[in-house]
Amino acid sequence: MKTQELNSLALKWQNGVPTILDQQLLPQTETWIEIKNVPDMIKAIKALKVRGAPLIGVAACLSLARSALLGASLETLRKEADELYEARPTAVNLMNGLARMKKHLVGQANVEALIQEAENFFLEDVRLCEQIAQSGVSEIPDGGQVLTHCNTGGLATAGAGTALAVIKKAHELGKKIHVWVDETRPLLQGGRLTTWELEKAKIPYTLITDNMAGYLMSLGKIDCAIVGADRIAVNGDFANKIGTYSVAVNCFHHQVPFYVAAPWTTVDPKCLSGKNIPIEERDPNEVRGVRDHIWSPANSAVFNPSFDVTPAKLVTGWIFDRGVYRKDDIEAGKLEAR
Amino acid sequence: MKTQELNSLALKWQNGVPTILDQQLLPQTETWIEIKNVPDMIKAIKALKVRGAPLIGVAACLSLARSALLGASLETLRKEADELYEARPTAVNLMNGLARMKKHLVGQANVEALIQEAENFFLEDVRLCEQIAQSGVSEIPDGGQVLTHCNTGGLATAGAGTALAVIKKAHELGKKIHVWVDETRPLLQGGRLTTWELEKAKIPYTLITDNMAGYLMSLGKIDCAIVGADRIAVNGDFANKIGTYSVAVNCFHHQVPFYVAAPWTTVDPKCLSGKNIPIEERDPNEVRGVRDHIWSPANSAVFNPSFDVTPAKLVTGWIFDRGVYRKDDIEAGKLEAR
Repeated sequence: MKTQELNSLALKWQNGVPTILDQQLLPQTETWIEIKNVPDMIKAIKALKVRGAPLIGVAACLSLARSALLGASLETLRKEADELYEARPTAVNLMNGLARMKKHLVGQANVEALIQEAENFFLEDVRLCEQIAQSGVSEIPDGGQVLTHCNTGGLATAGAGTALAVIKKAHELGKKIHVWVDETRPLLQGGRLTTWELEKAKIPYTLITDNMAGYLMSLGKIDCAIVGADRIAVNGDFANKIGTYSVAVNCFHHQVPFYVAAPWTTVDPKCLSGKNIPIEERDPNEVRGVRDHIWSPANSAVFNPSFDVTPAKLVTGWIFDRGVYRKDDIEAGKLEAR
Repeated sequence: MKTQELNSLALKWQNGVPTILDQQLLPQTETWIEIKNVPDMIKAIKALKVRGAPLIGVAACLSLARSALLGASLETLRKEADELYEARPTAVNLMNGLARMKKHLVGQANVEALIQEAENFFLEDVRLCEQIAQSGVSEIPDGGQVLTHCNTGGLATAGAGTALAVIKKAHELGKKIHVWVDETRPLLQGGRLTTWELEKAKIPYTLITDNMAGYLMSLGKIDCAIVGADRIAVNGDFANKIGTYSVAVNCFHHQVPFYVAAPWTTVDPKCLSGKNIPIEERDPNEVRGVRDHIWSPANSAVFNPSFDVTPAKLVTGWIFDRGVYRKDDIEAGKLEAR
C-alpha cells in the first residue's frame, strides 16, 4: 500500500509509520518516538508527549491508518477509534478526525481510504494554519507587544500553528513585534515549548509566570493577546488551556484586545454554550510540582482542570481560516451556519 | 547581657542568637539555621530562607542586636544596618525596624537598648498579628471559600500572620471555611509554605496554580480573597507578591470581596501612591524553572518582578490591627493620619 511522506515540526509520517517528537522532553532534548500501534499513541496523547488539539487529531488518525495498514480487523479498528476518541475528552479535532476515519469503517475496512483520509487530514491542517495566519495577521499592530498562553504553534498542529502562526506571520511580514510568553502552569507549554519555537523562529520574546500578565497590562506593556481554542461553542464561548480565562478577564479589564485563533472545525455545532463543554481534570501531582520534582506536601488536596471556558463577551475577535469574526457575527449566528 | 527567649514558627531568639527555619527547604525538610552575623542574615534574606515582610524586619533587627552583643563598633553597626536595609527594597517593615534600631546608634552603641528594641519589635509583631486576626475575622463568611496568595502566616511574621492569621482565626472560631491556595509562582510560597501551615493547623484547603483562581470565581467557588501587603501607600494602593494584582482584577470582575491584611506599620506615610513603590526584580532563573530544575531554554529572556501594585479601587477592605478600613476611610485620608 502506497503512503505519502509527511513532515511537520513534531509529527512525521514516513513509510506508513507515525513518529512524534516527545514534547515532554523539550526544550532540553529533541527525541523522536516511533508510534507502533494505537495503544502506544493513546499513551503518548495522555502523557502529552504529543499535544495540541489539532496535532492530536492528526496523530490519532495516522495511528489508526497504521493499524489498518497492518491488517487490523474492522472490529479492532472500530474499537481503537473509540479508544483514541476517549484519550482527551475536550479537544474537538480528535472527535472530528476520528469521525472522518469511521466513515471508512463500515461493511469492510477500506485500508486505502483510511490512509488517504488520515493523510488528507494532515495536509488540510497545514493549509488551515496558513489561512488562519493570513486571516489574523492584520489584527497584530506593527511594533506590538503580544501576549500568548500555552503553545499553539508548529508543535500543536501539523502546520505553523493557530495563535502562534498569526504571531509568526506578523514577524515574517516585518512587523516589529515582541511576544510575552505565559509559562502556562501546570504543564509549562509556554515556558518549555513556545519559547523553544520562538527561539527557532528568531522572534523576540520574554517569558513570564502566568500571574504577571495582568501586571504588565497595568503598565501598558501588552497591546493584544492571542490564544488558541480546544473547542468553540456556537455562542462564541470557548474552552482552552487553563489560565486562558484569567488572561481574558485581565484583557477586558484593561481594554486590551483579546483574540482566539482556531480552525473553523474547532466550532462544535452541537455545543450551544461553554457550559456544555466537558472539562478534563488531570493528575494532582501536576500541580504539586513539575514531573518528579514535587515541592508541595505529598498528599495536598489539589484542583487540576486542564482547561477553562472563556465566555464570548470577553473576546474581541475569533480568528478562523475563513476570516475574523466579531461579536456581531457571533450574535448573528454565524457559528451555527454549516 | 540578659536576653529573652523568643520563639515563633520560623524564628527563634535564644541566648542572644537568632535561628531561622530555612523556608527554602519546606515543606520536605525542617532545618533550623543559626545566623551568626549580619552578612549571613543578609544572605538568608536575599535567598528567601527567611521571608515575609514582617519576619524579615524582626530577623534583621535581631541580627543587628546580635552584632551589638558581640561588641561591634558603632561604625560597624551603622554600616550593617544600612546593608540590612538594602537586602529587600520593597518591604517597609525592614525599613521601620532598622530605623528604630538606628535611634540607639548615636553617640555610642547602647547594646542593652538595641537588644530591647529588637525583642520589643518581635513581641509587638506577635500582638499585631493577633489584632489583625481579630479585626478581620468578621469579614470571612461562615462556610466561606477563601482564596489566598503567597504565604502570610506564621512563616511570614513573628506571630500568627496577617492574611493567613485572619483565616486561621475564622477556623478557630468554628466557621467552616475552605481555603483555595494559589501556588504563587515563581517561588511557590503558596504551594510550599501556606499548604504546610494549613496542614499543621488542620484547615481544609485545595492547592491550585495561580491561573486557576479566575476560573474558580467564574464557577462561583470563591467567596472572598485575602492577601498581605509589603507596603501600603497613603492612597490605599499597595505592593504585594507578584500575582496579587491579577487576583484583585479577577475579584473585581466577579464582584468577589478582596481584602488586604497588614499591620498598620506597613503604611508608608511618605509614599503617596503605588507608583512610588520600588519594585524589586529578581533572578531570571526563578522563572525559567524551580531551583536547579530549569525547564525553559537556558538563556530565555525573562521578566521577574517580585511584587506588583494593586490600586485602591480594586480593594474592598484594608484589614489593620486597628480595624478594617473601607474605601471611604481611605478617601477621607485616614492612612495619612499618624
